[in-house]
Amino acid sequence: MDTTTDRYLTELGQQLRVDSVRASSNAGSGHATSSMSAADLMAVLLARYLRYDFDWPDHPGNDHLIFSKGHASPLLYACYKAAGAITDEELLSFRTLGSRLEGHPTPRLPWVDVATGSLGQGLPVGTGIALAGRRLDEQPYRVWVLCGDSEMAEGSVWEAFEHAGYEGLSNLTALVDVNRLGQRGPTRHGWDLDAYAARAAGFGWHVIEVDGHDVAAIDAAYAEALGVQDRPTVILARTRKGRGVSAVEDREGMHGKPVPDAEEAVAELGGPRDLRVEVERPAAATAPRRAHGTQARLPRYERGDEVATRTAYGRALAALGADRTDVVALDGEVADSTRSEYFAKEHPDRFFECYIAEQEMVATAVGMQARGWTPFVSTFAAFLTRAHDFLRMASISRAGLALAGSHAGVSIGQDGPSQMGLEDLAMFRSLHGSTVLYPCDANQTARLVAEMADAAGIRYLRTTRSDSPVIYAADERFPIGGSKLLRSSPEDVLTVVAAGVTVHEALAAAEELAGEGIRVRVLDLYSVKPVDAAALREAAEATGCLLTVEDHRPEGGLGDAVLDAFTDGQPVPRLLRLGVTSMPGSASGSEQLREAGIDAAAIATAARRYAAARTR
Amino acid sequence: MDTTTDRYLTELGQQLRVDSVRASSNAGSGHATSSMSAADLMAVLLARYLRYDFDWPDHPGNDHLIFSKGHASPLLYACYKAAGAITDEELLSFRTLGSRLEGHPTPRLPWVDVATGSLGQGLPVGTGIALAGRRLDEQPYRVWVLCGDSEMAEGSVWEAFEHAGYEGLSNLTALVDVNRLGQRGPTRHGWDLDAYAARAAGFGWHVIEVDGHDVAAIDAAYAEALGVQDRPTVILARTRKGRGVSAVEDREGMHGKPVPDAEEAVAELGGPRDLRVEVERPAAATAPRRAHGTQARLPRYERGDEVATRTAYGRALAALGADRTDVVALDGEVADSTRSEYFAKEHPDRFFECYIAEQEMVATAVGMQARGWTPFVSTFAAFLTRAHDFLRMASISRAGLALAGSHAGVSIGQDGPSQMGLEDLAMFRSLHGSTVLYPCDANQTARLVAEMADAAGIRYLRTTRSDSPVIYAADERFPIGGSKLLRSSPEDVLTVVAAGVTVHEALAAAEELAGEGIRVRVLDLYSVKPVDAAALREAAEATGCLLTVEDHRPEGGLGDAVLDAFTDGQPVPRLLRLGVTSMPGSASGSEQLREAGIDAAAIATAARRYAAARTR
Repeated sequence: MDTTTDRYLTELGQQLRVDSVRASSNAGSGHATSSMSAADLMAVLLARYLRYDFDWPDHPGNDHLIFSKGHASPLLYACYKAAGAITDEELLSFRTLGSRLEGHPTPRLPWVDVATGSLGQGLPVGTGIALAGRRLDEQPYRVWVLCGDSEMAEGSVWEAFEHAGYEGLSNLTALVDVNRLGQRGPTRHGWDLDAYAARAAGFGWHVIEVDGHDVAAIDAAYAEALGVQDRPTVILARTRKGRGVSAVEDREGMHGKPVPDAEEAVAELGGPRDLRVEVERPAAATAPRRAHGTQARLPRYERGDEVATRTAYGRALAALGADRTDVVALDGEVADSTRSEYFAKEHPDRFFECYIAEQEMVATAVGMQARGWTPFVSTFAAFLTRAHDFLRMASISRAGLALAGSHAGVSIGQDGPSQMGLEDLAMFRSLHGSTVLYPCDANQTARLVAEMADAAGIRYLRTTRSDSPVIYAADERFPIGGSKLLRSSPEDVLTVVAAGVTVHEALAAAEELAGEGIRVRVLDLYSVKPVDAAALREAAEATGCLLTVEDHRPEGGLGDAVLDAFTDGQPVPRLLRLGVTSMPGSASGSEQLREAGIDAAAIATAARRYAAARTR
Repeated sequence: MDTTTDRYLTELGQQLRVDSVRASSNAGSGHATSSMSAADLMAVLLARYLRYDFDWPDHPGNDHLIFSKGHASPLLYACYKAAGAITDEELLSFRTLGSRLEGHPTPRLPWVDVATGSLGQGLPVGTGIALAGRRLDEQPYRVWVLCGDSEMAEGSVWEAFEHAGYEGLSNLTALVDVNRLGQRGPTRHGWDLDAYAARAAGFGWHVIEVDGHDVAAIDAAYAEALGVQDRPTVILARTRKGRGVSAVEDREGMHGKPVPDAEEAVAELGGPRDLRVEVERPAAATAPRRAHGTQARLPRYERGDEVATRTAYGRALAALGADRTDVVALDGEVADSTRSEYFAKEHPDRFFECYIAEQEMVATAVGMQARGWTPFVSTFAAFLTRAHDFLRMASISRAGLALAGSHAGVSIGQDGPSQMGLEDLAMFRSLHGSTVLYPCDANQTARLVAEMADAAGIRYLRTTRSDSPVIYAADERFPIGGSKLLRSSPEDVLTVVAAGVTVHEALAAAEELAGEGIRVRVLDLYSVKPVDAAALREAAEATGCLLTVEDHRPEGGLGDAVLDAFTDGQPVPRLLRLGVTSMPGSASGSEQLREAGIDAAAIATAARRYAAARTR
């Protein structure tokens, strides 16, 4: 068939529908109708506009195609088949155990940048890739994001519109498949394309409305988008869900399931086809030069200096950035608080102000790591909870992402509970493959920043607002998964397990108790995940009791983390736990620690009580 | 002074500035300059438009004033003083230990509906109150929300614009204090009011641009807003941060701190004033009639029936709604999956379709509970993580909120990890004062729905996609904080602690093990928070070992929750833990349980291994 004709495009669209129907029917589940509405959009893109080398997924010049409506995975996989990237046999492995073709796309497939399936995330990630293309990679690749109309209700989509519009990312094109039907019925705006157009134009995007089943019109829309030089383009395509199969087309109740009769549907679509698209390869391109030193000149602090760990974070990050040009930093308009401003000042070309939009900030970072950069993301620990679902999806994306949450805990003082990160350890611990670090002094912080840069997966560093004394030498090492025994004697009645701000309280308590003849061990569990199981077991064996103390809710944090060392069926030590169980108000930092019952006095009281009960 | 003059309004604005300066300077912290920019907006509102009885905060006809920019709390408290609600002495207690005047407003003050301080949340909550005013309370009160310009970057703000615009909430007015300076420097759009106007208009709002220091213009803007009948209004006010004090006015680096010289500043503002505003009281109004039965006719299931707990949730909620007219339901466009559709069909007037905007959905519910309604919120468990920060703030708001997360765990099957709630227990456990419930059968679910309705704080119910056998009688009781011992004998070598889908796996494993002569106890820990400490201790004492098994990440869930019973310094049993440690792909539900190592076979293997080691 003459591949330059519209008829070819139409036939290709039908093939994508047929394969979407076949894959989902074979699996017995999957989103056939959501695939069929967007098939023509994809046919034209694949045949005429996408620049991609399927044999070389890491080609630095490749375009990026993201299915923000990840449930249309049958369509994506049908495209891969049409492009010759997968066989028909693999297509039919859709949704079966062990197949790379999951219900929603993940980077187990080499052509998938990031996992989607939680709606409203693909476009935000796409802005990150487009921004990387502009400001980091400096490559002419384009980013194409297929969105559903239902997901336009997600605020994160509008964070992306704001970000991309402001940055003028003309290398980004959003395709909105307006099929008017969501999962459980009509969307808010149905086929009112003008409603979406008004919103998108308000955010500074170029807007094109098109009949999403008219391949000539789609072709013209793509051509128009390519010609826009100063802003991103959104193509609003009026489509019909289940297009081409009368049993399901534009009907409610047909979401997320195969068509009722696949054979009949395939016949109605004109039967199977075997068109093979020669997707145009990108022009030659070179990977960005990224210098990767091995020994950042980290700032050094003298014992006894008073330095906030957030300050040590910012300074270490700036030093790391000098050593490694792959490191980029993103902040949510609080760089003066998180202290990522040090990095911003030294490396303005690799610093990204994301304003107060935490979801978009994390998504941008996920996009950048997909392009090989090493992002460090910072805001208040409390506000990282805003991006929880994005972090969850980042773990499914197998993304490498470093994050720092400042102003953790009640110790921040007067600002009150809305600004206190008290649930962040629980959130980050529960993420698959995550690393959770919580330093107590400046030298430890600096070292852990360097450790984070080299680690995989999602790495979280928790920092503190107020100054704390430097207690470690600058040359001390702090491997991930380690801990530091700060105080011990053969007479220890228990082990205080602390991290961050409570390390200093624990040391003060130990001192006070020693004066009364009560010896306690102090363990700095700076690596909250993974924990130092050997050290915890040793402390348990030596003292028989662990007293955890944390500036965090008792659930999911340090107190729960120590358990990771004791779930092997072996004896478990006695446990005591101090954490923030009440709702704080405003007060000074030291008053807050006292009110929460996690200061030196509270630790000493708990230890005293335990020691007394023990000797009775 | 003649209170009808513009001069009076100007003077009142200056008084609010003076008191903002005094309060923050006295505290040594606080956001003076962010208060000063919005003082004139508040002066005109207070003197001429707000309808509020400060002596009767629960007056059903009261307007609602929300500071979405909660950091401008000095201004809010200055307003309260001007209205005679608090004394000058209390004003000066700002940010001190024990004061109701916290760094960011919370409902410890009777005039504050909800806590703010995490930006981008006040307007979403305001839409909930405005929607309640329209569709539930049927009262003519108005909702006024003061927003900052920085928070306009938050997607949640645009979810609120979308929701309120679509619902045509003309009883809602947003005041945006465009002072052009964020925390660390200029905002994205500075004083480009047109940028905000284009966005807001795109979402269907009436837009007014105004000089935020021209009291006559502000007055005219409010009057115009009152006249708009079919849509919400946003007043975009061009203001100067720190207005009136030359040392700080429109200067960078002056965010979040007192003015450098308070005395000088007060003098420049014309000295202290003691104007007392007579805020107009609302017209007589009656509280909505809410019938509150005590015995909902819950659906009953026969033992052996196969019913999904999500179905039992939806049916129980519908029954509850018949008994209690205070119960309302909200869903994120997945009511057919969460089964809140049963409620929607029976009580359409109290069902709110929130589309795919989980933050706005939770915020709307928070707004409704502030008006005395009892909201039940549902979506997939996985997608509730999207609203984590809103849930965190809801706990600070002391909000009463019931939520149900469906499709929990790997057991959902083929859809893959993006749709699996695997971190939800950790998230909900870490919220202050929360209740976390996880039923395993339909009768248990129905009872727990009723229990949730009567409980306080944030209550979470985790439901399962697939059918499971009914194992409890319909009359069985399941109090919050309880558990059920399903199987026990004097020879039990350990206790399997399960909940939800793993209860059935545990029972099957126990059966299998019994055939081999290995007895294990099975405890259904349906109340994950609070846990049944007595039952866990008894099981520990009897068997010496707890084997937890959960369809959730090992961190922060059931395995950690059992520890809540053992942190009192008493002996702790041995512990074994099964949870989802790998990254799932697509597969059938039973394959997923097997792959994750949380099915009956895995439980049996772990128990066998433990029993063998024990006898060696």
